[in-house]
Amino acid sequence: MQLQASRLDRECRKALRRGPLSWVLPFGARGVPVMAEARVHLDHNATSPLRPEARDALIAALEEGGNASSVHTGGRAARGRLETARKQVAGLVGAQMRGVMFTSGATEANALALHPAWEIAGRPVTCDVLLTSAVEHPAVLRGHRFADENVEVLPVDATGRLDLDALSARIAVHAGAGRKAMVSLMLANNETGVIQPVAEAAALVHAQGGIMHCDAVQGAGRLPIHMGTLGLDLLSLSAHKLGGPQGAGALVAAHEDTRPLVPLLRGGGQERSRRGGTENVPGAAGFGAAAKAAQDVLDKEALRLAHLRDRLETEIVAALPETEVVGSGAARVANTSCLAFGGLKAETLVIALDLSHIAVSAGSACSSGKVGPSHVLSAMGLDDARAGGAIRLSLGWSSTEQDVDRTIAALRRVVPQVRSRSLRAA
Amino acid sequence: MQLQASRLDRECRKALRRGPLSWVLPFGARGVPVMAEARVHLDHNATSPLRPEARDALIAALEEGGNASSVHTGGRAARGRLETARKQVAGLVGAQMRGVMFTSGATEANALALHPAWEIAGRPVTCDVLLTSAVEHPAVLRGHRFADENVEVLPVDATGRLDLDALSARIAVHAGAGRKAMVSLMLANNETGVIQPVAEAAALVHAQGGIMHCDAVQGAGRLPIHMGTLGLDLLSLSAHKLGGPQGAGALVAAHEDTRPLVPLLRGGGQERSRRGGTENVPGAAGFGAAAKAAQDVLDKEALRLAHLRDRLETEIVAALPETEVVGSGAARVANTSCLAFGGLKAETLVIALDLSHIAVSAGSACSSGKVGPSHVLSAMGLDDARAGGAIRLSLGWSSTEQDVDRTIAALRRVVPQVRSRSLRAA
Repeated sequence: MQLQASRLDRECRKALRRGPLSWVLPFGARGVPVMAEARVHLDHNATSPLRPEARDALIAALEEGGNASSVHTGGRAARGRLETARKQVAGLVGAQMRGVMFTSGATEANALALHPAWEIAGRPVTCDVLLTSAVEHPAVLRGHRFADENVEVLPVDATGRLDLDALSARIAVHAGAGRKAMVSLMLANNETGVIQPVAEAAALVHAQGGIMHCDAVQGAGRLPIHMGTLGLDLLSLSAHKLGGPQGAGALVAAHEDTRPLVPLLRGGGQERSRRGGTENVPGAAGFGAAAKAAQDVLDKEALRLAHLRDRLETEIVAALPETEVVGSGAARVANTSCLAFGGLKAETLVIALDLSHIAVSAGSACSSGKVGPSHVLSAMGLDDARAGGAIRLSLGWSSTEQDVDRTIAALRRVVPQVRSRSLRAA
Repeated sequence: MQLQASRLDRECRKALRRGPLSWVLPFGARGVPVMAEARVHLDHNATSPLRPEARDALIAALEEGGNASSVHTGGRAARGRLETARKQVAGLVGAQMRGVMFTSGATEANALALHPAWEIAGRPVTCDVLLTSAVEHPAVLRGHRFADENVEVLPVDATGRLDLDALSARIAVHAGAGRKAMVSLMLANNETGVIQPVAEAAALVHAQGGIMHCDAVQGAGRLPIHMGTLGLDLLSLSAHKLGGPQGAGALVAAHEDTRPLVPLLRGGGQERSRRGGTENVPGAAGFGAAAKAAQDVLDKEALRLAHLRDRLETEIVAALPETEVVGSGAARVANTSCLAFGGLKAETLVIALDLSHIAVSAGSACSSGKVGPSHVLSAMGLDDARAGGAIRLSLGWSSTEQDVDRTIAALRRVVPQVRSRSLRAA
């Protein structure tokens, strides 16, 4: 059943169209101006503010300039910055620096990775099928370079974890028919934070000689990652999800002698001919610095964010007992909370929170223009009514206790209002 | 005949390996320390320093953050910056802003463009062959997405311009067999600055219903460009060649209802589903500001750079009469000079100039690691000895009269030295 756009929804949208002055009195604040109040960014899974270390490295590289492929002094200085960044990014995931292929982001990294023909550890491997999960990012589900008929999307259980039995069965069927599989499984889900059994999946696919790829965008800088321990051949990263700049990412190979037999971008031979195009040195420098900064405080930050997230969830569930914490039955990355509030439209709640200067999202940012429930929550078995009322709150390096306090207060105030108006309008 | 690495060459390379202290006394400076002297960057075709306007716009966007696809206030602010940039980039080439597809650079823009299947002005067009010139950038020659057997590389004349008769003949042959052509022709060559007859080529391909693409990387911001007047369907741009940041570029369509039927990057539906991946808002903002800054002074700068470049060439040819100005028989973009010095290795000259704090290149930056003569100069009929002694000097927005003075003085001093040592070593 599709809820009608409520009056509140229309009012919120109208207020947003009127521009900044209409935000002086945020929805439900009963006349108390809060314009001077800083915005709370609980949308780190969409994009994380730039870390100071990343900012410094990026600006230093911008000031210096230089094409990393030029042989003169300016070029070699740029090359130095690029290679420092490569080492820092490799360090974040326990890889060798020669395994790092810089890209424009994770969408490109996924597209580069998800092709049948690779050379892994100097040995050609051709995969016949791509097996992936129903909760992957669209950059995997739609972004791969396999023929569509050679892609199988495997189910997840109610907690959002890949069904390993299904994976094992499909790998066995393909192996029996002489077909090799590439498996692509995300480390942590962008909407729920649920951590996937990547090491188990890697063991299954490797037993049959296939390739294991992991979209680690939402786990990197938040979970300890060692590609060797996890058994990953290829791993995708995005800089801006961990406090680096937008427009930078990497595909990392566990073995340095790994290359795509069909690169996505071909040109001047950059990145050891694995990815053509002038290297984005400032972007890489910012990415590397963010990776290092994230790694330096990884364990401490994971604990801090888990504490913040758990407090957020506990207090919201206590205040609004009908709230469902999606994915709470599985291990989750510490920063992400997906809360389903029955009887309201998540989009309206996002707008109402925005009027209270709190940034969250309904599903992922990149699908925000789309209508219809999240494919992730649908795959977990949530019906449209439950999935349609789910918002994502995602914390990060800049999140504070005060952010959580304000979010709890706002949700306690706004959720009943949005719900009652939604019900009246329905 | 391949010249041996000379003693000078070995010395220069050794000095470079020793690091910055060895540059205190640059080669040939006879003991006068010049460490405090600013570096002369005559390598704008490799990468141009960031314009102040681009720096400001980029940093403002970095500070603000935000995912342009998020619906909340922070997302909409980022979206605003992105759309401002889109308008600025469109303005540089006389296009509508909805025609602009932001990419990670020109290599990606070329790869996106050079696919057989497009929808142009809302109408599907499938091209059977790709016709291009022998002097294109490797991002076109190797970066396209046609089957190799459907690509034809057409010759240029001795001045470096595409042979239009050959193009016309090939288009006619294909049209006679019911095959449509996509033509990809650069606006200005990256090594010589020679301007290609893109309008004439466009008229030929359009007469048979094909698609015209132009890699305008080295012409944009230097030549006035109006896609409609030139008859271009698709045009590739790179931000960092015109004073914007690395990692940003665009494919621009003349008609806003133009889309690739097979996008290169698929994911979250960004760029109207023509290019997936989180939008690089700071990169685009810097790109847009650089495009606007370049456009605002286009005519004046073209005159200024032409004056500098012509003086450079005139004085060098007067001092070193055996110097050949490659491509001087054709119209060239004002900033680029390709000078062939017989009897020496360009790589050694580049290093010797670098020791005098002057940055130039031998061929293009992205092919600098490679051995062998430039494919551009070979296509123009230069033999290996002539092509092997050619360097590229490329000016830009930050170039000054003093830069040219110092370069002339250095070349007058260094070329005879490099040449005499090369001859002794041969």
